Amino acid sequence: MAEPEAKRVKTEYELIYWPGIPGRGEVVRLLFEDAGVAYIDTAKGDNAVPTTLSYMDASNLGDEKNPPVFAPPVLKHGELVINQLSNILLYLAPKLGLGPASGDGVYHLNSIALTILDGLCVEVHDTHHPIATHKYYEDQKEEAKLRAEAFREERLPKYLTYVQRLLDAKTSGEGGWLYGGELTYVDLVLFQCLDGTKFAFPKTVEKLKKSGKYDDVFKLYDAVKERPNIKAYLESDKRIDYSDGIWRHYPELEEDE
Amino acid sequence: MAEPEAKRVKTEYELIYWPGIPGRGEVVRLLFEDAGVAYIDTAKGDNAVPTTLSYMDASNLGDEKNPPVFAPPVLKHGELVINQLSNILLYLAPKLGLGPASGDGVYHLNSIALTILDGLCVEVHDTHHPIATHKYYEDQKEEAKLRAEAFREERLPKYLTYVQRLLDAKTSGEGGWLYGGELTYVDLVLFQCLDGTKFAFPKTVEKLKKSGKYDDVFKLYDAVKERPNIKAYLESDKRIDYSDGIWRHYPELEEDE
Repeated sequence: MAEPEAKRVKTEYELIYWPGIPGRGEVVRLLFEDAGVAYIDTAKGDNAVPTTLSYMDASNLGDEKNPPVFAPPVLKHGELVINQLSNILLYLAPKLGLGPASGDGVYHLNSIALTILDGLCVEVHDTHHPIATHKYYEDQKEEAKLRAEAFREERLPKYLTYVQRLLDAKTSGEGGWLYGGELTYVDLVLFQCLDGTKFAFPKTVEKLKKSGKYDDVFKLYDAVKERPNIKAYLESDKRIDYSDGIWRHYPELEEDE
Repeated sequence: MAEPEAKRVKTEYELIYWPGIPGRGEVVRLLFEDAGVAYIDTAKGDNAVPTTLSYMDASNLGDEKNPPVFAPPVLKHGELVINQLSNILLYLAPKLGLGPASGDGVYHLNSIALTILDGLCVEVHDTHHPIATHKYYEDQKEEAKLRAEAFREERLPKYLTYVQRLLDAKTSGEGGWLYGGELTYVDLVLFQCLDGTKFAFPKTVEKLKKSGKYDDVFKLYDAVKERPNIKAYLESDKRIDYSDGIWRHYPELEEDE
């Protein structure tokens, strides 16, 4: 792949996201961290909540060049403002040297990213909020138990099976990465989403790991964790602890032993 | 926009999707229909189910050039095979003259498509399957009532408000379309998803329409419906009736009068 464009371009990247949770913003951070590219992270500033809310406000109609956004994460780069996580990744990948700028690989990687996000981000969120995003977990706890059971028993194995298929496929090439024989942004997507899912469902993920059916998936997870820039980031204060975001741990949503 | 590339290229497009429901495949169909570009639709052939299943089979590892796919819709174009609806739309739009091939508009349109699909496709599906996709509606009917209430009261108005914001924004330009002053694929996405949501929740959508808060959204819906190619398609035998797919009508999931 070409030299990361971001190292040549001076315009700074700005990530707008909620403070206090890794959340969807964390996937964006991992791309910058792995690429070693500086970025402004509003979640770490003093005005994180009002800044984020201002983008979502009904009175915010974007500007001359950008339509309004629906929800964070939001990426600002020069005059461009975009939202939707997979869309931000699609935009950043070639600029950070983490994916091709054109050709079939763009669409293959985008579909892999979308699928992993569906399974290990959106569906994990839905385990603790199966009825209403705007209501408390405690008000949908019984439904959450049912939804979590379906996630543990059906959905999570189904998605992990798919990721293992990607690694078994010829298109993964050599080296243990998901596509094209070298690390791309979808490997970082998988790492973050599996890490979050492990936090939410530690027993379930450990059991699936021990099944031996997804060995290459977990090997990839470990390999991302050991990449120098990622390792340094994970050990730093910059990495935000999991709490009550997308990836939450409620012991009652795991299988009884 | 440039002349649709598909009119110059001879390779045929093939849509692989479930038979008997409009579903996610219908959004892809509307792009071809509006553009007047021929396509093979496996859903209309004799082997629709086995063909679709063969792509999802755990033993299917794709080929030399394409990773395996997770779920339909799948698009084949020459040697390329891709899945994930928004990804298929991203690929097709510039080829069918329904979106730019490069530049900021690519990312703005992709984020709009993703948001409309989240709200009026994925979340509508979840109203009748809030607990487990692989189980019957009848086994999650009580939870479905709660989820549908949250959809009707909170989520649907929230998404329609966002679409109205897009239309109020300067970036929509003149003409009543969502982006850039001319029809793009996201207008077709909105049409199909709103049409499906109307089928599923007719009373709710009618009530929201009458509120007068989303007039431009419903005007856009009507304008798509009157486009000659779309109108001819909707009146033809090719248009599949709604049944038990994503957009289903269960009277008990609507508000009592």
